[in-house]
Amino acid sequence: MSRTWRLGVAGLGTVGTGLLTFLAEHPRFAPAGGQAVVTGVSARSRTRPRAFDISALPWFDDPVALAQSDEIDVFVELIGGSDGPAKAAVEAALNAGKPVITANKALIAEHGRELAELAESKGAPLLFEAAVMGGVPAVKMVREAFVGDDITSISGILNGTCNYILTEMESGGRAFAEVLAEAQRLGYAEADPTMDVGGFDAAHKITILAALAFGCAPNYAAAEIEGIEQVELIDIQMARDLGYRIKLVASAEQAAEGVLVRVHPTLAPLSHPLAQAGGALNALFIEGPRVGRIFVQGPGAGAGPTAAAVAADIADVMTAAVRPVFQAPAGSLKPFDPINPSKMMGRAYLRFLVKDEPGVIAAVSETLAEAGVSIESFLQKPVENAGGVPIVLTTHATAESVLAAAVERIAGLPAVLDKPRLLRIARI
Amino acid sequence: MSRTWRLGVAGLGTVGTGLLTFLAEHPRFAPAGGQAVVTGVSARSRTRPRAFDISALPWFDDPVALAQSDEIDVFVELIGGSDGPAKAAVEAALNAGKPVITANKALIAEHGRELAELAESKGAPLLFEAAVMGGVPAVKMVREAFVGDDITSISGILNGTCNYILTEMESGGRAFAEVLAEAQRLGYAEADPTMDVGGFDAAHKITILAALAFGCAPNYAAAEIEGIEQVELIDIQMARDLGYRIKLVASAEQAAEGVLVRVHPTLAPLSHPLAQAGGALNALFIEGPRVGRIFVQGPGAGAGPTAAAVAADIADVMTAAVRPVFQAPAGSLKPFDPINPSKMMGRAYLRFLVKDEPGVIAAVSETLAEAGVSIESFLQKPVENAGGVPIVLTTHATAESVLAAAVERIAGLPAVLDKPRLLRIARI
Repeated sequence: MSRTWRLGVAGLGTVGTGLLTFLAEHPRFAPAGGQAVVTGVSARSRTRPRAFDISALPWFDDPVALAQSDEIDVFVELIGGSDGPAKAAVEAALNAGKPVITANKALIAEHGRELAELAESKGAPLLFEAAVMGGVPAVKMVREAFVGDDITSISGILNGTCNYILTEMESGGRAFAEVLAEAQRLGYAEADPTMDVGGFDAAHKITILAALAFGCAPNYAAAEIEGIEQVELIDIQMARDLGYRIKLVASAEQAAEGVLVRVHPTLAPLSHPLAQAGGALNALFIEGPRVGRIFVQGPGAGAGPTAAAVAADIADVMTAAVRPVFQAPAGSLKPFDPINPSKMMGRAYLRFLVKDEPGVIAAVSETLAEAGVSIESFLQKPVENAGGVPIVLTTHATAESVLAAAVERIAGLPAVLDKPRLLRIARI
Repeated sequence: MSRTWRLGVAGLGTVGTGLLTFLAEHPRFAPAGGQAVVTGVSARSRTRPRAFDISALPWFDDPVALAQSDEIDVFVELIGGSDGPAKAAVEAALNAGKPVITANKALIAEHGRELAELAESKGAPLLFEAAVMGGVPAVKMVREAFVGDDITSISGILNGTCNYILTEMESGGRAFAEVLAEAQRLGYAEADPTMDVGGFDAAHKITILAALAFGCAPNYAAAEIEGIEQVELIDIQMARDLGYRIKLVASAEQAAEGVLVRVHPTLAPLSHPLAQAGGALNALFIEGPRVGRIFVQGPGAGAGPTAAAVAADIADVMTAAVRPVFQAPAGSLKPFDPINPSKMMGRAYLRFLVKDEPGVIAAVSETLAEAGVSIESFLQKPVENAGGVPIVLTTHATAESVLAAAVERIAGLPAVLDKPRLLRIARI
C-alpha cells in the first residue's frame, strides 16, 4: 500500500492549478496508503500567470507525449473538449494501460462507450467524478452507491451558470440578455456562453448519469435539449405568481419502453428543493423503488470542488478497485432505447398574448377542452406595453403530443397575438 | 472479474430478508463483474415467519460458525448490538480473512479501532455503509468522496424515529409521551425506545462519520448526548413563533484544539434544509474549505434503503479495492482529542416560567446582561394552566460556559418558578 503514484496533469486552468495546490498542501496525501506525486504537466502555455508556480515541474509541450510518458503512472486530463487533444491524450494514456482521470463531460458523454471499451480492454480505470456536479459526488453515488437499486429517475440542476442567471433574473427583475452580459463581465459565464445557456453542458452531464444509472452506453445524440435563452422575465414573474420558480432541469427516466434524457426550463413549486437551490448551486434527485428518493446539493463548479473531485478519483485509482466504467462492462451495456417524449405525461405552463376583447378566454378554454387538455389554474394579469393581454394557465397531466396539438390550435385562434409559450412543470 | 462471491448472512430481520429478496430478484447482480450467491444464513429463529422463504438456504445455528465457514467468502452481519454474537461473529470472519459487511452502528462506533486493526492485519475489507443513514451513502461520501478536502464539520438528522416524533408533536400539537406511544403501536419506535429517543443511535452514527471525516479512531465515549425526551410541546410552539423548528441534530466539528461530537435538540430556522426534513427523513451537511457545503437527504432506515446499502458494500467488496477502514490505516489514526464544549460559541434558546408580577422581565434582563449574555429576541406569551408566565428568549453567540452560568443565576431569581430550559440554535 505504500507505492508512489506518479501523476501527469494536462490542462492547467483553475481546476488544474487547484489540484496542484491541493497536492502541494497535502504532501502526504495517501488516502489508500499510496503517495501521489506530480511528475509531469502540460498546457497550452507554459508561461501564462498561474496561481501555482509550475517551474519546478517537468513540462511536456504535447499532452499526448505526457499521457504516454514512462514518467507517469496516472494521467489527469483537464484540457476539455469532446475531441482534439483531450481525446487523443486520453486514448494514448489508456492505450499505454495507464489509469485516466478526467473532468471532461463532453468527452465522456460523446465518446464514453468507445473509451470504456478501450479502458476495460487495457485493464485501466477511467474515472470522471469531476465531470458532473463538481464537489458533489454524483458519479460515485449513482455508479457505486445505487447498485443495490434499479434507478428509475434522476433529475436536477446541473449547470450553475444557468441557475445563477435564472436566480438573478428573478431577484433583480432583469431580462436574460442583461443578466448574461453581467455574468460574462463577472466571469460567471464564458465569452461564448452557448454550452451553458443552451443546455448542452447540462445535457452532457445528465447523459453520463443516465448511462451510469441505467446500465446503457452514453447517448448524447438522443438527449432532448432546450436552454434558457427563451426564458422571459414575464414567465419568471407569472410562474412566481402561480407558486413556481423556473429552473433549468436535466432529467433521465427509465421506463419499460426505454430511456428519456432531456434538459429544459421547468417550473418547480416554490417549496420544492430544486426551487430552493439558488445561485450557482447544483442539486440532484436520484430515485429508485428500494432506496426511495435521495436529494443532494452543493457547489457544482469552481476550482476547489472540482479539484477535490479529481483528488477523490486519484484516491480511487490508488485502491486498485476493478469496476466497469459504467454500470456494466462496456461490451454488455444495454442499448439506449430513447422513449418518444410525445407519450410522456406531464403538467404544463402555457402563456400567450390575446386581444383585449370579450369572449377570448371562453374561446381559449373551449379550444383546450376540445383538444383534451384540462386546465388546473388560470392567471390573467395586465402587463404594461405587452401589446395585448398575457394569459397564463397551468394544465393537469397531459400527454406531450396532446399538449403540442392544443398549442397549435390556440396559436391559430384569431384573438391570439403570438406563438404560445410552453414550459413544463416538475413532476415533483 | 467473473468469480463467484459466496455470502453468509447472519441476522434475518427486515434488512436481512430485504437483502435476500433483492439478491433473489437480481440473480445476475454482478456490479463489478462477479456474482453474489448466498451460501449460508443464521438467525435467532429458523422458523419465524419471514417475507422471504429461507428453507432452501444452508442454515447455521451459530453465527460464529457461519462467519468461519469455508462455505462463504464474505460475511454479512445484520444481528446488531455492540457486543455479544455480532462482535464475536465479525471477529471470527475477519480472523478467517473474510471481508465483513455490517449495518451495526453500535459495533463500529464502540469497537471500530480494534476491528479496523484486525481487518487491516488480515487484509480483509470491513464495510458499514448501512450503519449510517440507510440508503443515503453518507459513509462512502465522507470516506471516499471528501478525501480531497479537510472536512471541518458534519451535522444532520441521523435518527428517523426522533425526527418522526418531533414532526408529529409539531403537526398534531401533541406531547412527546403521546406521540411516542403511537409510534410504538405503529412500529416506528421500538418497545424500548431508549437507543433512539435518548440520542444514542444518532451518537453512534455521528461517531462513525467523525472518525471517517477527521482521520481519528471512533470515540463513542467522548460524544455529548442529549435526547428528545425533555423536548416539550411548549418549546416546539415557542420556537415556531420565533421562526424555528426543533430537530435532533448530531454534529461533529474539527477545530485546532480537537474534535467535538454531540447530539442534542437544536433550533433550526424554518427555511433551513434541516428544518424542512420532516417525518422519518435523514439529512446531512458535510463541509470543508475546498468543496464547500454539501447537503444530502433521504430515507435513513427501512428494509429497502438499508438492504440497498448492504448491496453497495457487496459490490465494493467485489472490486477488491484496498482502502483503510477509516480515513487512514488503523495504526496511524490520529488521537481523538475532545474539545471542551464549554468554550464553544453558539446561540441559544432559553425558556423559564416566572411569576406574573411587575419587574420580573427587568430582573431577568439585568441578570443576563450581568452574566455577559446578549439577548437577540424575546417572547412572552400567556399559556393557560402554565402556573406562571413562560418567557422565551434567544441569545446572540455566547460561550457555553457563560450561558450555563447565566442559567444558574436566572434559576436563583425569586421570581423564577422552575429550572430554565436551554436549547441550542443551529449555527446554519
